[in-house]
Amino acid sequence: MNSTTTSELSKFTKIFEHFFLTVLKNTSQIQLKLHEAICYTCLNGGKRVRPLLVYLAAEFLDIPVKKVHHIAAAIELIHCYSMIHDDLPAMDNDDFRRGKPSLHIAYNEGIAILAGDAIQSLAFEILIKNPELLPEVKTKQTIYLAESCGWQGMAGGQLLDLESTDKQITLEELITMHKLKTGKLFISAISMVCGILENSNEKISALRKYTEAISFAFQIQDDILDVESTSEILGKPAKSDIKNNKNTYCTFLGIDKAKQETNRLYKEALETISPWPEKKDNLENFANYLVHRKY
Amino acid sequence: MNSTTTSELSKFTKIFEHFFLTVLKNTSQIQLKLHEAICYTCLNGGKRVRPLLVYLAAEFLDIPVKKVHHIAAAIELIHCYSMIHDDLPAMDNDDFRRGKPSLHIAYNEGIAILAGDAIQSLAFEILIKNPELLPEVKTKQTIYLAESCGWQGMAGGQLLDLESTDKQITLEELITMHKLKTGKLFISAISMVCGILENSNEKISALRKYTEAISFAFQIQDDILDVESTSEILGKPAKSDIKNNKNTYCTFLGIDKAKQETNRLYKEALETISPWPEKKDNLENFANYLVHRKY
Repeated sequence: MNSTTTSELSKFTKIFEHFFLTVLKNTSQIQLKLHEAICYTCLNGGKRVRPLLVYLAAEFLDIPVKKVHHIAAAIELIHCYSMIHDDLPAMDNDDFRRGKPSLHIAYNEGIAILAGDAIQSLAFEILIKNPELLPEVKTKQTIYLAESCGWQGMAGGQLLDLESTDKQITLEELITMHKLKTGKLFISAISMVCGILENSNEKISALRKYTEAISFAFQIQDDILDVESTSEILGKPAKSDIKNNKNTYCTFLGIDKAKQETNRLYKEALETISPWPEKKDNLENFANYLVHRKY
Repeated sequence: MNSTTTSELSKFTKIFEHFFLTVLKNTSQIQLKLHEAICYTCLNGGKRVRPLLVYLAAEFLDIPVKKVHHIAAAIELIHCYSMIHDDLPAMDNDDFRRGKPSLHIAYNEGIAILAGDAIQSLAFEILIKNPELLPEVKTKQTIYLAESCGWQGMAGGQLLDLESTDKQITLEELITMHKLKTGKLFISAISMVCGILENSNEKISALRKYTEAISFAFQIQDDILDVESTSEILGKPAKSDIKNNKNTYCTFLGIDKAKQETNRLYKEALETISPWPEKKDNLENFANYLVHRKY
């Protein structure tokens, strides 16, 4: 990995954190506790994988960074709300997240449900309030976002996950579940960025293929880390998939084949962007980070 | 109440139910159970108060009905998702809703959380997919909807409600709570309809005042019914506010003064629309229905 481009990645993370703080700024005295709960989760040192993808896609397509802040924030907010609800006792029942008690532990279940709900609303609010884009562009973006997180997207995938726990499913069903639960939001992030351009082009097609590959690799790497890492490094309980009797790529493929698969997808991602050598460094380093990350 | 206009109200309810069925039509085989859970709540014979307000506002402003179907559906979807989450054990812990087991009882808590989440996404999706309106109009509508249901709106109000249970609050705090929890969504419905017109006018100002009055009256009537009605008529446990030690208008004002207040607000609502005698019948009957309803 080129260290210059690694610092480029962290440059984008900093740009995002700065913008995200303005999004989460409290402008009202009415509901301090709910705002506090929202910030507890949203400003908790996440990896910001989805915002990074947004910024890097914009860079690859020569779209000014100021046009995509709102997309990055909206997609991260959806991710944050889904984490809060996924951690609830009725869902994955995870008490820890990023090394801290989950929101429902730090506050209570009622606040966690409401904070998640409010964060989802905020995602749509931020997306549509982007002053840099035309209404017709934002309209399409809102459709992408809504479709990716509803019953035919993330929420649907999460239900498949809940229902398949303790059951034998096929590898095909596992892939469908993850495409809904994780993949659709990644693709929606890219679609929102690409939609800023008036016409489709080869770079856009390449970016879509890249995103499909890395989002799949990202998910498999998650499963691998659950087996190989420790709770301290992960900031949440390791081996929780095994404990919860979850279907994962590791249980299907075995850990070695799972690693081979992430490597294959990593190479596939790099291959799709290789025709643009002057533009590909940051996307390459991002893919590298995703499949070699330790938490 | 004029029986012709009463049947006009039910005409609009039927129009809505017909449209709502198309919104909730299943176009995918992926996630049947989640879709089933969504329909369990959304197609459960609700009063459709918010959609009715949307249609009647459109009629009052001479806006064709086909332009507001999506607004009516979006606002009802937000209401439906909030009911599902409000009923959860960590929130109001209500086992019955409209005479049937609440969603988390009929299915389970995990499905209820996810169904609520997916319904919120669907609300934004439907609103933005309205083929009858321009993107700039829909952009503003999305802002109204998001602001009315997030942490500075409905979700914030629900948290105030949760936090004030078992506590002494002031009447002013009770009013703030209900404005957030119920009032903002009513006002947002009206704002979305009014935003279809290019310019503001006196009818729009009147409609806003009307809506503020009836949404407040609607809430007080809810509190009165909780005291005076039976579980059978309500389709949910009566006296639940007393059981849950909730602050209500009845506990603050006493039941007689609460009734006087709904009557005062009812008259105020009628007064605001009285300058348009040829247009006011349906709105009058709607206000009448809201404050004289038995469930």
